[in-house]
Amino acid sequence: MKYFTRRSVLLLLSICLSWNADAQQLLGFHSESARKQLSLEAAFDKQLQAKNLNEWMKLMTAYPHQVGSAYGLKNALFIKDKLASWGFEAKIDTVQVLFPTPKVRIVELTEPTKFKAALLEKSFREDATSSQTKDVLPPYHAYSARGDVTAELVFVNYGIPADYDELEKLGIDVKGKIVIAKYGNSWRGIKPKVAYEKGAIGCIIYSDPKEDGYFQGDVYPKGPYKNETGAQRGSVVDLPQAPGDPLSNGFYAAGDKKRLTVEEAPAMMKIPVLPVSYADALPLLKALGGQVAPASWRGALPITYHIGPGPAKVHLKLDFNFDIVPCYNVIGTIRGSDFPDQWILRGNHHDAWVFGAADPVSGAVAEMEEARAIGELLKTGWKPKRSIVYCFWDGEEPGLLGSTEWVEKYESDLKEKAVVYVNSDGNGRGYLGAAGSHTLEKFINQVGRDVMDPEKGTSVLERLRSKMIVEGKAEARSRADLRIGALGSGSDYTPFIQHLGIASLNLGFGGEDEGGDYHTIFDSYDDFVRFKDADFAYGIALSKTAGRTILRFANADILPFEFGNFSNTVNGYATEVKKLLETTRTSAEEHNRLLSEGRFEAVADPKEARQMIKPMPVAPYLNFAPLENALIGLQESADAYTRAIADPGNISAGTIAQVNQIIYKTERFLINEKGLPKRPWYRHQIYAPGFYTGYGVKTLPMIREAIEQKNWREAEEGIMRVSEVLQQFSAEINKAIVLLK
Amino acid sequence: MKYFTRRSVLLLLSICLSWNADAQQLLGFHSESARKQLSLEAAFDKQLQAKNLNEWMKLMTAYPHQVGSAYGLKNALFIKDKLASWGFEAKIDTVQVLFPTPKVRIVELTEPTKFKAALLEKSFREDATSSQTKDVLPPYHAYSARGDVTAELVFVNYGIPADYDELEKLGIDVKGKIVIAKYGNSWRGIKPKVAYEKGAIGCIIYSDPKEDGYFQGDVYPKGPYKNETGAQRGSVVDLPQAPGDPLSNGFYAAGDKKRLTVEEAPAMMKIPVLPVSYADALPLLKALGGQVAPASWRGALPITYHIGPGPAKVHLKLDFNFDIVPCYNVIGTIRGSDFPDQWILRGNHHDAWVFGAADPVSGAVAEMEEARAIGELLKTGWKPKRSIVYCFWDGEEPGLLGSTEWVEKYESDLKEKAVVYVNSDGNGRGYLGAAGSHTLEKFINQVGRDVMDPEKGTSVLERLRSKMIVEGKAEARSRADLRIGALGSGSDYTPFIQHLGIASLNLGFGGEDEGGDYHTIFDSYDDFVRFKDADFAYGIALSKTAGRTILRFANADILPFEFGNFSNTVNGYATEVKKLLETTRTSAEEHNRLLSEGRFEAVADPKEARQMIKPMPVAPYLNFAPLENALIGLQESADAYTRAIADPGNISAGTIAQVNQIIYKTERFLINEKGLPKRPWYRHQIYAPGFYTGYGVKTLPMIREAIEQKNWREAEEGIMRVSEVLQQFSAEINKAIVLLK
Repeated sequence: MKYFTRRSVLLLLSICLSWNADAQQLLGFHSESARKQLSLEAAFDKQLQAKNLNEWMKLMTAYPHQVGSAYGLKNALFIKDKLASWGFEAKIDTVQVLFPTPKVRIVELTEPTKFKAALLEKSFREDATSSQTKDVLPPYHAYSARGDVTAELVFVNYGIPADYDELEKLGIDVKGKIVIAKYGNSWRGIKPKVAYEKGAIGCIIYSDPKEDGYFQGDVYPKGPYKNETGAQRGSVVDLPQAPGDPLSNGFYAAGDKKRLTVEEAPAMMKIPVLPVSYADALPLLKALGGQVAPASWRGALPITYHIGPGPAKVHLKLDFNFDIVPCYNVIGTIRGSDFPDQWILRGNHHDAWVFGAADPVSGAVAEMEEARAIGELLKTGWKPKRSIVYCFWDGEEPGLLGSTEWVEKYESDLKEKAVVYVNSDGNGRGYLGAAGSHTLEKFINQVGRDVMDPEKGTSVLERLRSKMIVEGKAEARSRADLRIGALGSGSDYTPFIQHLGIASLNLGFGGEDEGGDYHTIFDSYDDFVRFKDADFAYGIALSKTAGRTILRFANADILPFEFGNFSNTVNGYATEVKKLLETTRTSAEEHNRLLSEGRFEAVADPKEARQMIKPMPVAPYLNFAPLENALIGLQESADAYTRAIADPGNISAGTIAQVNQIIYKTERFLINEKGLPKRPWYRHQIYAPGFYTGYGVKTLPMIREAIEQKNWREAEEGIMRVSEVLQQFSAEINKAIVLLK
Repeated sequence: MKYFTRRSVLLLLSICLSWNADAQQLLGFHSESARKQLSLEAAFDKQLQAKNLNEWMKLMTAYPHQVGSAYGLKNALFIKDKLASWGFEAKIDTVQVLFPTPKVRIVELTEPTKFKAALLEKSFREDATSSQTKDVLPPYHAYSARGDVTAELVFVNYGIPADYDELEKLGIDVKGKIVIAKYGNSWRGIKPKVAYEKGAIGCIIYSDPKEDGYFQGDVYPKGPYKNETGAQRGSVVDLPQAPGDPLSNGFYAAGDKKRLTVEEAPAMMKIPVLPVSYADALPLLKALGGQVAPASWRGALPITYHIGPGPAKVHLKLDFNFDIVPCYNVIGTIRGSDFPDQWILRGNHHDAWVFGAADPVSGAVAEMEEARAIGELLKTGWKPKRSIVYCFWDGEEPGLLGSTEWVEKYESDLKEKAVVYVNSDGNGRGYLGAAGSHTLEKFINQVGRDVMDPEKGTSVLERLRSKMIVEGKAEARSRADLRIGALGSGSDYTPFIQHLGIASLNLGFGGEDEGGDYHTIFDSYDDFVRFKDADFAYGIALSKTAGRTILRFANADILPFEFGNFSNTVNGYATEVKKLLETTRTSAEEHNRLLSEGRFEAVADPKEARQMIKPMPVAPYLNFAPLENALIGLQESADAYTRAIADPGNISAGTIAQVNQIIYKTERFLINEKGLPKRPWYRHQIYAPGFYTGYGVKTLPMIREAIEQKNWREAEEGIMRVSEVLQQFSAEINKAIVLLK
């Protein structure tokens, strides 16, 4: 039985003027269909069982299951079979990808004393899988260069551009040196990339105990934090340029285009780089001389942090098997009854670095349980109006390989049909985390309002609101909707939103599940059920949140996009970049004044190394008028759409369908086909991962990064480009408004 | 030959209308006398020789010289003889004081493992005196209680009241426990005092390497920071109640009043307390269980900081010799030619905890060199118009014993005759540090303008200005005078300013001389000449600064007090306390709102210990009008005095003398005879050491501390009392203005 027919929609529309004026209403649903939707969601919730998540996680994390592994394939088949058994049309979509694994890993101190790093994580009785060795990838960085280098060591703090500014002031050059950087404050791939740009010939990244070790709390297995042997694996592919298989960057790996060799691939890291534990880092850091590191650089090791270079000299030797391996995406589909060519996409990856209980299985099993519950709804005769597509990505860890290749493969279909993509990844106990397209902000607030927190008697939204209020974010009290974050990168939403302009959400719970297990062998089932989400209550909360999101999109009368919050958010971003320019200007002016007045010279301690302080370029005034005008237009369109939707008059189902077609594609108009400067794959003009932060988002990226990099002409071009996409975006909304009148 | 006669003053006055309008002029000097004064100062500067400081320091720090020690007496005699040889009338003013020294010191972990603290500082080849043992006081706290206690340990962060608020929230009680606190963030005596008030039965204070150990830089002897054996000695007498011999608190020890017994003395610490090194603290802290300490509590030891209580159990046993020892103040006087009964006082202590090169000998030898140079000026026939009194205090370390008893002994003389007291203490390489009565702010700015920085081509004032500007203190650019700090306690100015209302200054250089030597055996000559002020250039800078201060006061035509800056400063304090009340109110309101809305409950992690959060009392509105009116009166008087002084008309020397008599006593009117609440010895109503900070100043203390302690009635009484003293003060200025008209 269909949930309701097109005809009934039409009839209901004729007698009801208000679609979503009442907070109790559901955005996108007429009150009668809202009632039905809520009872559907209640039925969905009833199906969800924590014991399934537990059972599946235990099974799926029993052995290492990185991309290309035997157990990875086993998991993929397991998921596929499950999806099929739940009534999905399930298949495995395979693509061949480059996945390097380590052959040689040597880090040793050669001067002034000798020390050879163990590069090995300890096993513990309390952690059943920690004693496995078969198929276990040791700590390494995928897509590091091969290399055999010996050089003086330099400590570069987090190894981000600002740290090299500081080093330059201190007169320290890393040219020809090996750098050692702390994990944190940027995506890891930024660290060797910047080191390479600065002339370093090798890079070591270590986990300082200040970040996620004993400084934060008891270490594993006593507590959840990183013990002295834990080391964080991870990819160092040039993700901010483009994710996906580095041999087919920007295009589908199995398509017609010729793939590159490893040597040709621009996304490969150019220098050898390796992660080490703090037990391995300590003797290296201790052996450093030279200037004492600035206070903010110092970690929690029991040493005085020196910068070097030397006298510590390090030998770093790395070699890899550059294998092409199969990457198994599992895709399960339920065809929509009314609009089969409108796809509501849901995804979570299934590959891990090793056992990956938290990352990614905690999210994957929640997604599986959603699929199972949807299967139960199907058994009652219900069908979604739109097609539902449940994806389980492989090869996320090395660089979003599975999702990116899949998106590139189905690009033309997706551009036409994808309504929304809903992602999750690791999940644990705590607060709702929601980020994504701000056209979905009001929608996801309603979803959060309707999901109860398993620890507290309130909704997950109210709990999050309480947190924000307690943290002093006054707006959380006064603004009806809580703000959601913007998406940078770091999980599989990236190809959807950044490359194709598909409105996306990333959902998950966390904040009461901290630890140091990320990308170590200790991200295990035993760790998870002790420290992350013991009873999988927050796994179920994720199923409820993401499942509701999918069901509402699948059934909505008018797709639940809203533009007022988007307009308000982009206005905020514009204010930020204007302020950034202003601050950049005034701080450069003040710096230059201090310099010309001799103030730096006056306060320099003659017993310390002389600082090289240079004048700073002063930012010109830029013409923000086009952006400001575009924002006024956007505001008007957003307001008019809200009014039109609130009082749609007597509108046919056909018109509604036309409106929906326009509305879900509005995000496409935030794309510019040329992409961002120096990285055409990233085409979204409102959200992008930072060129020098990696995962961290930069909003209005072309303007913001140009100002940060003091490229004033590009900033002005960015203003024009953002203004254009906003105008196009508003024009689309206006088309919908005309239809609704 | 007299420098100039009363008659010449009169003559000069008659022909000169401007006293200090020109920045090139000297405050308090007519232009002709200013010229002579400047040439006197040039002659003074010429006499100063760094090699004397070096030689005297080496001699005076060769053996331990705490109060009551044989070498302390030797130093006192040495200084007295020197003063006499330079033409001073020199004597030793001796008083008997209580000075406990340790007999038994035991700190041991009894559970869950055994460990006995070494309580011993290591000796090093690089530090010649570090191998001495004779007369060396081991690390201990003077005026600790005797005791033999065994109890569970609790880590209390800095052990200040705010830390106990946090403990209360976490549901942790220290009753019957031994607490361990970090050094820092308050005077040490506050820590056991608050612990006792909270019911603890013992207290251990350790130096966390984050504060002054390896976190800050290389440790001694490689660098200047605290090595793992260093422990900070010090007094824990109840200094914020009253300094001086605890057996004669508030009165002269050798006077008629009967002295207390040790058992009766209220200023004695009530529980046993001992300082330990971080090597000794580490096993104790490591053995703690219970909740993980808040992030801001954690130091730089390689452990997870837990709060306890237990399972760590500690045995603390202390016993002392409660000896009465002689305390030798050395006093050298040069009788003033014109106004012998106006005393210009200068002081620095000579006693140390052990060798005390930095604290206090670096300051004492600078003061001695001033005295020697003044002696050289005397040889040329010059004589100061006012009497100069050079003091070298004993027993400062245990609790300002020498200076306080001396001030109490000569109270009536000092009330009548003391014009100004100029203090110094430890001194090193770096920036001018000046704090004191704000009636002297303009004066000391002029002094700083006239002393050259030995490292840079600018004046010490301009260098300080550069530092403030580089640190972003915009006012340092726009305001002609740099602001000076207010005096709390911690050195010998306290009895002068806080008890008697004698305008005071504390002077010194520092900021490029950091280390971890404070009150350890490593505060030695070897340490000093490597890390503090190798060539004694800043010792000479101190001699120039303090010497100029003394010479200008000794010779000034009109005493160089100025009230505009004082008025401006007190206005600022009033704004601060009003804002404090406002913030106290709004933060309590917000806290109570969060509590009543259930926000704390909503965000509490059910897996962590339940926090006890109670409603906060909301501050009422207080009547600040009397203070505001008094401040307007003060502003008017200050302005009028500045005008009167700028254009004094035809005034006789007798009138000038009358004006001077009034002016230098104005500070007396900032005293209220009742003193501050709960501590009548502290009588200054504008400046006091904090009741719960110890050394740290609290300005407008009665108002500010009452608000902090939420005692609203006392705050209102404080407003009245401050208003009264400001009115009296203004009335005195007005008397001088009438004379000048």
